[in-house]
Amino acid sequence: MINRQLLHPKSIAIVGASNTISKPGGKIIKNLVDFGFDGEIYAVNPKETQVQGIPSFSSVEELPSVDLAVLAIPAKFCLETVRILTEQNDTKAFIIISAGFGETDDAGKKLEQEIADIVNQNNACLIGPNCVGVMTPQHTSVFTTPVPKLTPDGCDFISGSGATAVFIIESGIPKGLRFAHVFSVGNSAQTGVEDVLQYLDENYVEGQSSKVKLLYIENIDNPDKLLIHASSLINKGCKIAAIKAGSSSAGSRAASSHTGALTSSDAAVEALFRKAGIVRCYGREELTTVASVFMCKELKGRKLAIVTHAGGPGVMLTDALEDGGLKIPHIGESSAKTILKEKLFSGSSVENPIDFLATGTAAQLGEIIDTCENDFDVDGMAVIFGSPGLFPIGDVYNLLSEKMKTCRKPIYPILPSLINVKEDVAHFLSHGNVNFPDEVLLGRALTKVINTPNPAPKKDTPGFVSSVKIREIIGQTENGYQPPEIIHRLFDEVGIPRVKEIVAKTEPEAVLAALEVGFPLVMKVVGPIHKTDVGGVILNVRNTSEVRKEFYHLNEIEGSEGVLIAQMASGTELFLGAKYEQNFGHIILCGMGGIFVEVLKDVSSGLAPLSKEEALSMIKSLKSYKILKGYRKQPGVNISGFADIIVGLSWLLRFATEIKELDINPFLGNENEILAVDARLRIERLPS
Amino acid sequence: MINRQLLHPKSIAIVGASNTISKPGGKIIKNLVDFGFDGEIYAVNPKETQVQGIPSFSSVEELPSVDLAVLAIPAKFCLETVRILTEQNDTKAFIIISAGFGETDDAGKKLEQEIADIVNQNNACLIGPNCVGVMTPQHTSVFTTPVPKLTPDGCDFISGSGATAVFIIESGIPKGLRFAHVFSVGNSAQTGVEDVLQYLDENYVEGQSSKVKLLYIENIDNPDKLLIHASSLINKGCKIAAIKAGSSSAGSRAASSHTGALTSSDAAVEALFRKAGIVRCYGREELTTVASVFMCKELKGRKLAIVTHAGGPGVMLTDALEDGGLKIPHIGESSAKTILKEKLFSGSSVENPIDFLATGTAAQLGEIIDTCENDFDVDGMAVIFGSPGLFPIGDVYNLLSEKMKTCRKPIYPILPSLINVKEDVAHFLSHGNVNFPDEVLLGRALTKVINTPNPAPKKDTPGFVSSVKIREIIGQTENGYQPPEIIHRLFDEVGIPRVKEIVAKTEPEAVLAALEVGFPLVMKVVGPIHKTDVGGVILNVRNTSEVRKEFYHLNEIEGSEGVLIAQMASGTELFLGAKYEQNFGHIILCGMGGIFVEVLKDVSSGLAPLSKEEALSMIKSLKSYKILKGYRKQPGVNISGFADIIVGLSWLLRFATEIKELDINPFLGNENEILAVDARLRIERLPS
Repeated sequence: MINRQLLHPKSIAIVGASNTISKPGGKIIKNLVDFGFDGEIYAVNPKETQVQGIPSFSSVEELPSVDLAVLAIPAKFCLETVRILTEQNDTKAFIIISAGFGETDDAGKKLEQEIADIVNQNNACLIGPNCVGVMTPQHTSVFTTPVPKLTPDGCDFISGSGATAVFIIESGIPKGLRFAHVFSVGNSAQTGVEDVLQYLDENYVEGQSSKVKLLYIENIDNPDKLLIHASSLINKGCKIAAIKAGSSSAGSRAASSHTGALTSSDAAVEALFRKAGIVRCYGREELTTVASVFMCKELKGRKLAIVTHAGGPGVMLTDALEDGGLKIPHIGESSAKTILKEKLFSGSSVENPIDFLATGTAAQLGEIIDTCENDFDVDGMAVIFGSPGLFPIGDVYNLLSEKMKTCRKPIYPILPSLINVKEDVAHFLSHGNVNFPDEVLLGRALTKVINTPNPAPKKDTPGFVSSVKIREIIGQTENGYQPPEIIHRLFDEVGIPRVKEIVAKTEPEAVLAALEVGFPLVMKVVGPIHKTDVGGVILNVRNTSEVRKEFYHLNEIEGSEGVLIAQMASGTELFLGAKYEQNFGHIILCGMGGIFVEVLKDVSSGLAPLSKEEALSMIKSLKSYKILKGYRKQPGVNISGFADIIVGLSWLLRFATEIKELDINPFLGNENEILAVDARLRIERLPS
Repeated sequence: MINRQLLHPKSIAIVGASNTISKPGGKIIKNLVDFGFDGEIYAVNPKETQVQGIPSFSSVEELPSVDLAVLAIPAKFCLETVRILTEQNDTKAFIIISAGFGETDDAGKKLEQEIADIVNQNNACLIGPNCVGVMTPQHTSVFTTPVPKLTPDGCDFISGSGATAVFIIESGIPKGLRFAHVFSVGNSAQTGVEDVLQYLDENYVEGQSSKVKLLYIENIDNPDKLLIHASSLINKGCKIAAIKAGSSSAGSRAASSHTGALTSSDAAVEALFRKAGIVRCYGREELTTVASVFMCKELKGRKLAIVTHAGGPGVMLTDALEDGGLKIPHIGESSAKTILKEKLFSGSSVENPIDFLATGTAAQLGEIIDTCENDFDVDGMAVIFGSPGLFPIGDVYNLLSEKMKTCRKPIYPILPSLINVKEDVAHFLSHGNVNFPDEVLLGRALTKVINTPNPAPKKDTPGFVSSVKIREIIGQTENGYQPPEIIHRLFDEVGIPRVKEIVAKTEPEAVLAALEVGFPLVMKVVGPIHKTDVGGVILNVRNTSEVRKEFYHLNEIEGSEGVLIAQMASGTELFLGAKYEQNFGHIILCGMGGIFVEVLKDVSSGLAPLSKEEALSMIKSLKSYKILKGYRKQPGVNISGFADIIVGLSWLLRFATEIKELDINPFLGNENEILAVDARLRIERLPS
């Protein structure tokens, strides 16, 4: 568990310290010294009396009391070292960078667990083993470089892979990305990505804590913890972006239902991130670009002005932003526009993009930005300014830097000339700014951020759902596929509408049932198995005299035990299903039925339970949404009703984790109502 | 027109030469001197006797004979200067970097045309005006930096924007991209992007000319020229990637047909690039990444081995490549695999990705690469190797560089540690290698390259198409929408199947017609306008006795002039249409009908005329292709027949450019046949 000793140690001991800076135990000391850690550094190395100018202790027993110990010694010595440090030196935080633990074999797994047990018994913190270390604004206990600029307003970055963390930092630094804390969690023997996030959430202090969190995750061990603390942080005003590597490798799994085949564990990740409000990224470059967007002020609408001194990049950025649903609105005539035009060189264009030509000056850029800030109906600006290499353009970048701080609206700087004005760009970044060298990568990152939904509000169980009654019904079931009666009771309990069905034993009962169900209706013989073969299914029965006639015929069929009178549903075929995913809970999938689900795989996913807003957002993210809401003269389906059903289903699943798979099929909707015609539902209790 | 004097000048005069290197006329001289141009450089500046150590002439009249003149003087002096140089100095090549021409106003447009006229009369070459200049392996007549490494095997790069060209070069250099020729064509008064490409095609010399061409285009003035020379170059073994900026801005146009509304000019660009085999890119980063892929050996299949010393990037690359249709195949057991495993450290994985751990050595990498090259069933390799910053890894990069040259299979190097091992990466690039710092951007670029079709083969008119007969029919038409007779004749001419229709005046005629058309069929009264209202349409007529009966009824209807006996088509609704786009010719769009075209906009486009391979490729690139070819137990439509119809239509349009819009609708297909039920066709001749 993260603690003060890890984040703000007064003293750090490097066990396995070395004079060779190409060794981890040497590089950590060098990093701490170079960084200027202002507490005590102790080296432990039996063969040295000094390590890089720091007095060295021959064993941990000789150390004074120490807050944080970093272990860079062979795995086999770590357990004993941790034991001594906790018992004798009051050490409350450990970073074990050594490898040879759980990633190697079962013995290593056992060893790291024993270490974690000791640490836990002493209420201490363990990061690793098999990690590159931890950086905070106070210390840099890592054996890797580069060490980025560490300031409290930088990004908090938690990585499940040490090497990838290094490469991500290397991708971020040239963009001006600053960091606050970097945690490489390694094998997560005690502290995983989710645990660090929990700490950052529970100890969040408005105005002091970083607002940007970046995650690189290879396995999500505790989706619930991730969801709770990611949502909570975002609700506090933070932004979170994450890579979950391995989206393709999971592959499909053997399963008996549509939903099973459609639900890869990646759909669970997708649903989790969506519910939490996490911006999902697929590569290092994308993660650091999204992080740079986060470091700018928040874009509070979709309208952007593009300000450029070169046509090409302005056009390419327009394409990328409009492709992602942002607007580059035409700037209508106004006195502000007229006044601005007069301040620019002849040939400049105050449409959008606003092109102030290759000869444009810093003063003109200032006028444009001020007019966008105060007069034009835009929510932010993207400013493109490079150089052909004739002269320095520091004045332009200084103005830009100044305006980025003073304007209310966000300004995204695109400074492409990383060679021609290398020094000017470096100076610009040194003022705490980020830079987006490529306008199209910025465009894609910005639209990705804008299109990520807010975290789902945490909702209490809706009034119409009774967990007691759901549990009562579930208590009466056995494992396996459930009979219609059970499914009907469960659906009725959470308000999933289904076709009306009544069994009639006599002709008067049939007529009463028909009046109850309404016309047109379907009549089916009850008893015989192959109903159609014996003429036992009559569609489209339209009035009571037909009911009487058909009752007579059906009742005559051999084996008849009565006649089922059922509502005849019609409309667009929909799809709704769910699957239980270990650790994640129920993934709910919805879509338009038929080829849309089966061939085009057009489904969207959510994690139960779902709010109505989430259900609507799921439906609206379907490609087939345009069809579902109706198009041209074609009527659509009742979208609000569809969302209500998804919500009801999600609460049913919330209280019945025994349901492992569920498909509603056929499932038909029109403008007025949506009806479940039939469903498959499998219950499987874990062996107790 | 490009000539020897532009590419290999023996002498270059800079008119408007300056001692101030922050001025274009100063920077060009500096660039030429720094580059070490080995011909004569002459400066022209009335106020100086020397410019940057070079003797200066006070006017162009005083110059000796000179091959290439670069003009960096005000626009108003350019015409006279060009006149004198052509008349007195035998100058055959001009680069005018001055602005103030066609981009400013009509007078400027006229002025640049006058200059082009003089240049043309003298059989000379003009680049610009309003450009940054030209670079070749022989000289660097540009006023911008950076000057990239210029070698004959680098990329040929032609840009419609000077500033964008600079930014693209700045994006390419850090990746190791080399250039051969860079042309900034500016206002293209004489020589546009297409003209340069034509020159590169017509003067292509196998083994000497660059194999990679990059284009940045804002307007395609001559699509035919682009198509012919791009295809020709690619057929000679070249690779071409291009950005066409402005994909979103064109917007939709008012038009009376489906096809009109669906055909933006971007669809024309898409169709053109597809036909030419050009890889379309949407940003600078993407263009230079694709260019770097081109600089590697060609990937001749879809199976790739990923070799990595860090898990994360390997997984992210796998995701990106599989997402784009490449395969990271499982490596099955074999003696080669067993032998390789023994050479790697314990814990290494010889699955795919092949992970040889953070401690992996150069020698081990060599073994892995050799085994992939000689034993494993893969077509290429991606090698990921970064550094946590402990020690240099030059030995690994030297080995990689060596293997990239000696292996037959392409190797894509992903060296992410641009900060930690900056010098090692620079050394690697200095051997003529490229680097892909981000694995996901490489993954997307590589799949884009692999998924771009080859140029369409140039085909002669198919034997079944008679241009004479098509012209004969067109000659009998008037402007406007055409009557069914004309459409039928045109369709029959190029083999577009349509429903059989015969008009019968008598009962025996009706029966004969029915036997000809086949059952089931449709009978319609001829004469009355509102046929349905008068009961004049009978569907699903199934035998001759029904024909007789219905003929009697239909003939009785007031105003009847006969009865139309028509084939009753059935099947999946398809879509096929075309629109004439100025300069481009006919864009043909195909798709699955109904919501797929109308709501989901799932159409693909091609430029007439089309080969069968192109037509098939169009159909296969549809999202609905999975449905069209049949899925599960649902039969599909006759794909080969659909392609034949697209080819026939394309040749009809090829010989009838008067056809401005055409929609086939309804258009129905099943497993056996595809039939046009009706069509709209508009002819519009340009006023002569």
